[in-house]
Amino acid sequence: MNAPQHFSALAKRSGEPPISWLMKLALEKPDLISLAAGFTDNETLPVGEVSALTREILSKPKTARTALQYGTTIGLPQLRHELLRRWQKQDHVRKSRISADDVVVTNGSQQLLYLLSEVLCDPGDIAIVEDPTYFVYLGIVEALGVRAIGFSNVEMLKARLEQLKAKRLLPRVKLLYLVTYFQNPTGHTWSLEQKREAFDLVKRYERAAGHPIYILEDAAYRDLRFEGGDVPSFKPFDPRNERIVYTNTLTKPFATGIKLGYGILPPTLMRAVLRSKSNHDFGSSNFLQTILARALAEGLYERHLPKIASAYRRKRDAMVEELDATFPNTARYQTPRGGLYVWVELDERTKTGATSGLFKRALDAGVFYVPGDMCYCADPSRKIPQNGMRLSFGAQSVPQIQKGIRLLADALD
Amino acid sequence: MNAPQHFSALAKRSGEPPISWLMKLALEKPDLISLAAGFTDNETLPVGEVSALTREILSKPKTARTALQYGTTIGLPQLRHELLRRWQKQDHVRKSRISADDVVVTNGSQQLLYLLSEVLCDPGDIAIVEDPTYFVYLGIVEALGVRAIGFSNVEMLKARLEQLKAKRLLPRVKLLYLVTYFQNPTGHTWSLEQKREAFDLVKRYERAAGHPIYILEDAAYRDLRFEGGDVPSFKPFDPRNERIVYTNTLTKPFATGIKLGYGILPPTLMRAVLRSKSNHDFGSSNFLQTILARALAEGLYERHLPKIASAYRRKRDAMVEELDATFPNTARYQTPRGGLYVWVELDERTKTGATSGLFKRALDAGVFYVPGDMCYCADPSRKIPQNGMRLSFGAQSVPQIQKGIRLLADALD
Repeated sequence: MNAPQHFSALAKRSGEPPISWLMKLALEKPDLISLAAGFTDNETLPVGEVSALTREILSKPKTARTALQYGTTIGLPQLRHELLRRWQKQDHVRKSRISADDVVVTNGSQQLLYLLSEVLCDPGDIAIVEDPTYFVYLGIVEALGVRAIGFSNVEMLKARLEQLKAKRLLPRVKLLYLVTYFQNPTGHTWSLEQKREAFDLVKRYERAAGHPIYILEDAAYRDLRFEGGDVPSFKPFDPRNERIVYTNTLTKPFATGIKLGYGILPPTLMRAVLRSKSNHDFGSSNFLQTILARALAEGLYERHLPKIASAYRRKRDAMVEELDATFPNTARYQTPRGGLYVWVELDERTKTGATSGLFKRALDAGVFYVPGDMCYCADPSRKIPQNGMRLSFGAQSVPQIQKGIRLLADALD
Repeated sequence: MNAPQHFSALAKRSGEPPISWLMKLALEKPDLISLAAGFTDNETLPVGEVSALTREILSKPKTARTALQYGTTIGLPQLRHELLRRWQKQDHVRKSRISADDVVVTNGSQQLLYLLSEVLCDPGDIAIVEDPTYFVYLGIVEALGVRAIGFSNVEMLKARLEQLKAKRLLPRVKLLYLVTYFQNPTGHTWSLEQKREAFDLVKRYERAAGHPIYILEDAAYRDLRFEGGDVPSFKPFDPRNERIVYTNTLTKPFATGIKLGYGILPPTLMRAVLRSKSNHDFGSSNFLQTILARALAEGLYERHLPKIASAYRRKRDAMVEELDATFPNTARYQTPRGGLYVWVELDERTKTGATSGLFKRALDAGVFYVPGDMCYCADPSRKIPQNGMRLSFGAQSVPQIQKGIRLLADALD
């Protein structure tokens, strides 16, 4: 149902988000095995750690009062320093003009995606996104009236930019949105070489655009790595802090209920984002920020990562092994080395959409997934593939994952 | 400094928020006595209570895991039930078609003000606001390109609506924004009779508008009452839940660091707000929501209110007595019976603005306030009064309040 006539254009453009429809399904039929939701593992939540941290914070009147009082729009200084330090370490940055003043704390990294898109994009502007990509970002794009253009590798990105240049549309291109680690939904991680190519490429087209084309790097799954090495972010390519927005969250690997994200931003963008965040909420909860700052400062966060890595690795193994054993040979999927998702592409004749026979049979059998077509932007220059499914191994137990995949395989028969 | 040309229209419209400039002042000169910030009393923060609540929540694996996991966009069911129950009690509502499905939880009530304005208003639409009003709401209005029209009593509201009707502008009027309890900045509380008149009046103009004109009732200070009785909200005038949006926060009286607000909304608006909140952050922190739900269910919140009432009453008394003793006879102010502010109007020749001699002398002497002109919307049909000041007694101690007022009085001489 669309918004009434007297609502804003934004409200009229905003469709029902797929996530709420999937959540409703899960609530209505609690026995369903959800391989859809991007929830995280319940067993490894740092209950004891958060308990100890809050006790500590609230036991001293001074820290307690700071935690329970309003903070500032940009975020708690201690937390921003910890986040900066962690980023410097992860990206091997020694000297940099980037300081804690370039770090903003938000209500999950989702809020930062919204703020950035809102301050950069007018209706009719263009965002270039991966094809497929994070469907909630596509919701933002839709609400803001932004045209999304998809690409699936650097070669294709170049072709897209070239087409846009030919149509004199480059001035409308405001940003590239990239999920660079264990992508949602494909599990793909950008190599450093791919990043360098994309960065150089985008920079080359800036002159014709007449302004910086920002790369919005969403690293939300970076710390949910359970195999292989880390890759530096795009940020080190931008030592003058002019083009790259790096966003991340620590609460996805730590505790999603604590819901905080952050970004490292060029100063001009930071100014606009802070003005907008002042209007949205003038700052995120100081209590949550104090907890997370302590978790970082005391090393609890760092020590928590190996625990979740082994839990998620087991779950990933269970899912992939069950797929190997039960899914048809025509199904293609990669074994992800981090994140929460296995992306499956069935043979092209098998439709996976919400109205497909497969989805209905799966529901009847007691399992559901995110239909792949929800993860593709509304780019009219290509047909949206109908044969993908995003399977999440984050929240379910190993036996439930195994059972869910078997039920799906049955539904496929 | 304005946003660059390649940013969005929203970013270009968004000015530096006054609050950030005042916060910066306070940070740069920590010895200044700030009578500006709307911070709350540090001494009465419920440190022990929050400590006990978090211990309890985190001691049981099941509740702990729910609290530390993602929730839903609309908010934690237990909390929404508690909020509904509390509203029913405060407004003496026995039977009602309003259920917990009509309650949404947000990041402070500020976020709800943003979401509502965003889903209702396009650039050029009209919001009718009190004159003066909450300056952060004026920031939202400015960012969204909304025209604000001010009024200072029901008679004047009628005249405004009549003028808008004559100019055929009523279809652009989307909402009235009213801070109905201990208003920010004036301390004024709407009587039930005034509410009834305003409600009937607005309803009468709806036909010419062609759509509902929503009343957005911001009750943020309702529970910060330290004298006199409570007044029902606008909501009971709207038993069919069609026109009134009631927004409130429990974290201003309880602990601002826990930063949660909520609203009771007509279903059509709820749908649009949830779609937009899905894009903003798909739900507020479950951990904070669990804490607040428990504080309500166990009566901690209710028992906390008399404690803060007496603390704020003492501070209010200290401020008003010092004003009586030191300010010129020409200064006018009311004694507020709740909230955080005393609104002072000086004689008309005394300017209070940020560039005025008075503001500079006050700063040099070591004290600052919110210049009254920041609280007036950009309505060109009247001159913005230049002689007001908002004085906050929320955060400072009694001796600091006394000293601050004395320094201000000296600066006035």
